[in-house]
Formats: sequence, C-alpha cells, structure tokens
Amino acid sequence: MKDAIVIGGSRGIGKAIAEALKSLDMEVIQTSKNQLDTSNLDSVKKFATLHNKTDILILNTGGPPPKEFFSITEDDWLKYHNQLFLGFCILLKNIKINDGGYVFLISSNVIKEPNSKLIISGAYRSAFSSVLKVLSKDFAKKNISCINIAPGPINTDRTKELIENVDEFQKTLPMGRLGEPEEIGNFVKSIVQNNIKYLSGVVINFDGANSNYVF
Amino acid sequence: MKDAIVIGGSRGIGKAIAEALKSLDMEVIQTSKNQLDTSNLDSVKKFATLHNKTDILILNTGGPPPKEFFSITEDDWLKYHNQLFLGFCILLKNIKINDGGYVFLISSNVIKEPNSKLIISGAYRSAFSSVLKVLSKDFAKKNISCINIAPGPINTDRTKELIENVDEFQKTLPMGRLGEPEEIGNFVKSIVQNNIKYLSGVVINFDGANSNYVF
Amino acid sequence: MKDAIVIGGSRGIGKAIAEALKSLDMEVIQTSKNQLDTSNLDSVKKFATLHNKTDILILNTGGPPPKEFFSITEDDWLKYHNQLFLGFCILLKNIKINDGGYVFLISSNVIKEPNSKLIISGAYRSAFSSVLKVLSKDFAKKNISCINIAPGPINTDRTKELIENVDEFQKTLPMGRLGEPEEIGNFVKSIVQNNIKYLSGVVINFDGANSNYVF
Amino acid sequence: MKDAIVIGGSRGIGKAIAEALKSLDMEVIQTSKNQLDTSNLDSVKKFATLHNKTDILILNTGGPPPKEFFSITEDDWLKYHNQLFLGFCILLKNIKINDGGYVFLISSNVIKEPNSKLIISGAYRSAFSSVLKVLSKDFAKKNISCINIAPGPINTDRTKELIENVDEFQKTLPMGRLGEPEEIGNFVKSIVQNNIKYLSGVVINFDGANSNYVF
Repeated sequence: MKDAIVIGGSRGIGKAIAEALKSLDMEVIQTSKNQLDTSNLDSVKKFATLHNKTDILILNTGGPPPKEFFSITEDDWLKYHNQLFLGFCILLKNIKINDGGYVFLISSNVIKEPNSKLIISGAYRSAFSSVLKVLSKDFAKKNISCINIAPGPINTDRTKELIENVDEFQKTLPMGRLGEPEEIGNFVKSIVQNNIKYLSGVVINFDGANSNYVF
Repeated sequence: MKDAIVIGGSRGIGKAIAEALKSLDMEVIQTSKNQLDTSNLDSVKKFATLHNKTDILILNTGGPPPKEFFSITEDDWLKYHNQLFLGFCILLKNIKINDGGYVFLISSNVIKEPNSKLIISGAYRSAFSSVLKVLSKDFAKKNISCINIAPGPINTDRTKELIENVDEFQKTLPMGRLGEPEEIGNFVKSIVQNNIKYLSGVVINFDGANSNYVF
Repeated sequence: MKDAIVIGGSRGIGKAIAEALKSLDMEVIQTSKNQLDTSNLDSVKKFATLHNKTDILILNTGGPPPKEFFSITEDDWLKYHNQLFLGFCILLKNIKINDGGYVFLISSNVIKEPNSKLIISGAYRSAFSSVLKVLSKDFAKKNISCINIAPGPINTDRTKELIENVDEFQKTLPMGRLGEPEEIGNFVKSIVQNNIKYLSGVVINFDGANSNYVF
Repeated sequence: MKDAIVIGGSRGIGKAIAEALKSLDMEVIQTSKNQLDTSNLDSVKKFATLHNKTDILILNTGGPPPKEFFSITEDDWLKYHNQLFLGFCILLKNIKINDGGYVFLISSNVIKEPNSKLIISGAYRSAFSSVLKVLSKDFAKKNISCINIAPGPINTDRTKELIENVDEFQKTLPMGRLGEPEEIGNFVKSIVQNNIKYLSGVVINFDGANSNYVF
C-alpha cells in the first residue's frame, strides 16, 4: 500500500482517516469540497482524470441538511443523488483500484435505520451500499477488499449541526459519549496495516452499541 | 376502500393486483407505460395532477435491462433513478392517500440480495424502500398502511427476459416453480379486504422460500 | 384446508387466530397451557402422539417474565429453551403437516431488536426462526408454506404485564394504538383463505410501523 | 490490556487469535476441549471459578457434525444448546470482564444464512448473538466492547470436514480461496492494539465477499 485517495478528507471522519493512513507513510490525496465536489459530476470527472489510480479509495462525503419528505424538492433529490450516489459510481468506474487494494465506504447507520430528518441520506447511502456489495464480488478477484463502515453518532461538526444539545445527547448513548473520528481512522488504518483482506463485502456498524437490531 | 391506482398495471404483477382489487368492486386506475412513464418526470407530474387522491396506491414498475456496473452509463443511472425512485417520490408527494388507505410498493428481493446483473434495480429499489419505511411512520397517524412486497422469481414477461431457460430454472427453486402474479394480487387483495392495518412499515419477501437470509 | 392446531390457542393472539380459522369452517384444536405446556417436553410428546397430523400448525407461546441477564438462572434458560425452542422442534418433528398445508410461527419483533428485559425471548425465538427458515425449503417441496409473523406491541394480557402504563405507551406508537390480536388472526385467515402459497420462508413484522430498521 | 482468555484456543480460529494476542505481549489462557468442554456445564463452571476475570474474553467453539432436522435427537439439541449457547452465558455471567476490556464472539455466517446441514449451529449461534447484542449495551457503560465476528469459509479442520472437495470449493469463492485463521487473528489483534472501542454491538461478516445479503 503506497497511496490513498480520501474523498471529503479535509475534516471530520475523512480527515481522521487521511491522517491515520499518513502515519503509515502512505501518500494521501485528501480532497476538500473545493477540490472535489461530489454533487458536481464535472468536478468528479475532472478529478478522476487527474487521479486515475490508487491503492486505497475512501468514499466519504457529508450529507444534506435535515429535511422532511414533503419539503424535499426535485432539485434536492438530484443534487444529493449526485453527491451521495452517482459521484461515487463515477469515481469507482474511472479510478483504477490497484490489485490488492481497498475501497472503504463511509456510509451511516441510517442505511439500516433511516429517519425522517435524514431521509435523503438514508435513501442514497442505502443505494450505494447495494452497489458496493455487488462490486465487492468483482473486486475480490483482484484481491481488492470493499468495506462499508456505517458510523453512528460521531463527534464531528455535522453531528453538532444535527443535534441540538450534544451534551445531553451523549448521556443517552450506551457509552455515554460520541465516537471520535480518530477511532474510525485507526480502524481503517489497522485493517490496512495488517493487510486484512478477507474482510470484504461487509457493512460494519460503528456506533458504540447504540443501534438496536442484531443482524 | 373505493378506488385504487395501480402504476404499471397493464401487465405482470401490476395487472394481477389491479384485477384482484377490481374483484372487490373497487374503481381501479391501472396505468400502462404509455399513460404513465415513471422514467419521465413530466409524465409523472401530469398524472399526479389528474389523479390527485386515492384510497390505495400501488407503486410498481419494471426494471432496467441487465447491465454490469462498468457498462452502465450516466444516462442509464439518471433514467432509472427517475423510473425506480424519483417518479415514485413525486407520486407520493402529490397524490393524497385518503385516511385509512394503503400504499403498496412492489420492489424486489434484490433490495436485500443485489446481484451484478440487476445492480441498478437493487440500488434504487433499496433507496425507495428506505423512503417508504420513513413515510410509514407519518402515514400511520392517518391510519394509512405502507407495505413493501419484495417478490422473488415470479412468472412474468420480465422473468422470461432475464432467465434463459425458465424450465430448468424452476427446478432449482424450493417450490419447483415460479410464483404467479395472481398470488401477489390475491395477497394484496386479502390485506385490503380484511382491512388489515397494523401491517405497516414492513418488507415482505414473496419468494417461495427461495432466499437464504433469515431476517 | 380442513383442520388446524393452534398452540397457545386459549388467549391472546393464538385465540384470535383459532377463532379466525374457525370462521372458515375449519376444525381447530386450540391448546391451553393445561392441555399442552411447551415447557414440558413430556406434555409436548404426548400431544404430538395424539395429534400427529394437520393441515395448519400455528406455533405460538407466551414468553418468560422480564429478567435481566445477570439474574437469569440456569433453570430459567432450560425451561424457556423448552418452551420457546425445543418444544416447537419436537412438534415439527412429530406432527405431519399435510401436503399443501401451512406452518405459522408467531414469534416477536425481539428476534430483530432484542432488549434487556426480554433477552430470553429474543434468544430462543431467534433460534427457532432460524430453524423454521431452513425447514421452509424442505417443506416447499410439499407445497407447505412456513410463515413467521413477528408481532410488535399487541393488545394482549402479556403486553399489559410488560408495560406499566399502556395508555401512555400507546401514544408513543406510530398508529397511536396497540395492534389487536384479531388483526393477526385475520391476516392468517386471509392467507389461508386465499391459498397464498408462495409466501414462505419469510419473517413478517406486524408492528404498526413501530420498528426502525428497513430490511 | 494484559490478559486474555480464548475458549477453543487450541486450534483453528481460536488458536490464531491466541497467537495474535500473544504477539502483543499479553498473557493468554487458551483452552482446549480437554481443559474446557463448553458442552459440559460443570466443566464450564469449574473453569469460571478458576479464571474469574480477564481483560479480553474470546468466545469460540466448534460446531456439531452436520445433521438434517429430522435426524437431530433431543440429546443433540441439549448438547449443543450447552456448547453453543448456555456455556457461553455461564462464562459471561461468571467471568468478570475488566473495565475497558473486550468480548469477542466468533460465531458464523450461518447466523444470517442458516443451512440445512448446520441447522443446530445456525439456531444456537443466532440465539447467542442476540444475547451478546443486548449485553453490549450494559458493557458499554464500563467501556467494554462486544464484537461478534461471523466467519464465512475459513481454512480450518472443520471446513475440511464439512466440504468434500476443498480445492473445487475454493474456486467458487469470490476471492478464489478460503480465509485464513490468521486473518481473523490479526483482525482481533488490530482492534485491541489500536484500542478501538466504539466498535461494539456489531456483527461483522468475515467471508471474503461471499455472502449475498447487503445489510
């Protein structure tokens, strides 16, 4: 493993993953929204032309502001269809993952438990999780592992926007705290560092025992 | 229950549901692709203007021709995003479901077990399943039940297109046969006829014991 | 369909199913705990000797009183292993289901979302759900359908024991009410009445849109 | 992290985990079936008296020989209920997990996709997965993480017993090979080594992209 591309790598979970991979002496391209806006397909295509292969691709992007179903406009759907789904498809189609590499998707626990505020996110992240599952079987032939990490409540700017009183909210969580972006960063790093390859085609909840479904 | 709208009601499962509901003396609008093409949002909006309320809405539409991920074009994604996802969102936003009514989604077992040939279908049907789940909680307040039926191999023209040798294929199935569209039609009818309302927010596999996952 | 056996048929959901099937002019054996105690394997075996075939078998039984993990005794585990799991296995092994028949399991939504109070119930009902899934494939060859109904909060004595303030609790539910046992009874009846056979190997949440997981 | 107990640690996956943890300079007690037979509750209780606390507990045990449902005896059920379920419950009840520790369960992909040969294993491993999920919420308060790893086809003696022609079988797998026990060992090690704690209450398929369900 020599190089990695981290989409949405300028802050939050993406940044933490980028930092963790850099500690392995990897060359890491970490994009901010200015450099690569996944809601803009031209931006996506241009990026994929400039960076057309990698060992590790981290697909990570923020979600839309909370909106109830009946106030979501057609433009909202189309924008986030690009940002959360189609942009990632184009990246995967155009960036060659080197043999033995990794694709990590940072999705969200809303792919299993959607909610009324994050309905767009739940929908399109589910959709892309389905795509990645299928691709994991193709990629397996080239020893490329596809790992879908579905974070629960993590200590990011995003969470602070979504949750009114974070201190109170933390008390309701099984661990009494939000997860730290660095925990996900270290998890990704530990998989790469130990060259764990048979972990593929999997959705991994990363939520501090917060979700209620077993399977 | 007096009237129903069956999208994709001119053949296959949609037609069988429409016929079953008509046997309950309901007034049924069943659309063919000529009358309502869910891949065309103008067509969808026009339809929703003409038919802006109903007791029962059946969301049903065919899927795309089989295509592997790396040959799917941006236009393919956009077309089927309309057909399998956005068109349904617009219908739900614009057609009022009368209190005590029903929304049935005819999705597919690919929402749980996607496959490389039906990757588009798996993605967008998962996405809409997520949306309907969220909406089921809102609709519950008005005693409207949302039921997602996920058919496995059913005896439709579609299946004949997808499966090369249907006779051989049937022998591999637990029941030794495809499901009949009428079985789904009768299932929908039986729910409506018996006014079963507490069945809501649920995905029901309808696949003759073919799938392998328990939950 | 001429006859049915309803285990735990003297009250609650079991009774409602028994009544619904009787309305189809079926001969229904409905057992109370006095007649058949599924926690007592001798009782189970004796019953299965006397009633060794049927068209429809309804596997239904109450759960244990709420207990946290660290206060559950070995005897508790063993008793409810019999009641919720092994007794049902013995019934299925010894009662012949006639060709074209049905097996309905009334499990619980705790098979997907267990909780600390109902940990025994969650465990053994999950286990039996797994068994029934496997058997559904064998039974399919004889056109016998296996349907696992997983009720959420239903208006039974059991629920009143578990929930302190039922009136307050109901207000928190999406439909603003508990489900009625008759709704499940009618659902079972409607499947049998319409001879819906391709619905098999399935878990059907019956919870008024209360659960949060999509799939 | 100073010490670990690995149940079933004398061969296969258990041994690989024990070796991996030892490479972290941990003191590891790894039990063979002679030392601790989880199908024998006396053996389990005696062990838990001698070893009544640990930082890391690895719950791992072999499964029963393949048997179809109708040939499983009551004694089979009771034996493997002990081995795969009740023995683990007794261990968890009697061995104190130190604050900040870990419980790893090595279950199997049959908890999601049971099959007719491994019906006992599917049932009781599902049941214990349900228990561990519930406990993960309690343990979270003490910063103890509970992680359920559900292996697919791994290169163990067990797999060689179950699969007739392993070479042919490997060709059917997405990665063209079985997983190695060391991969799971390294995975467990990497989590412990990096002190990843927010990963808890989760089932992680470890199957080389072999399973078909997304979620």
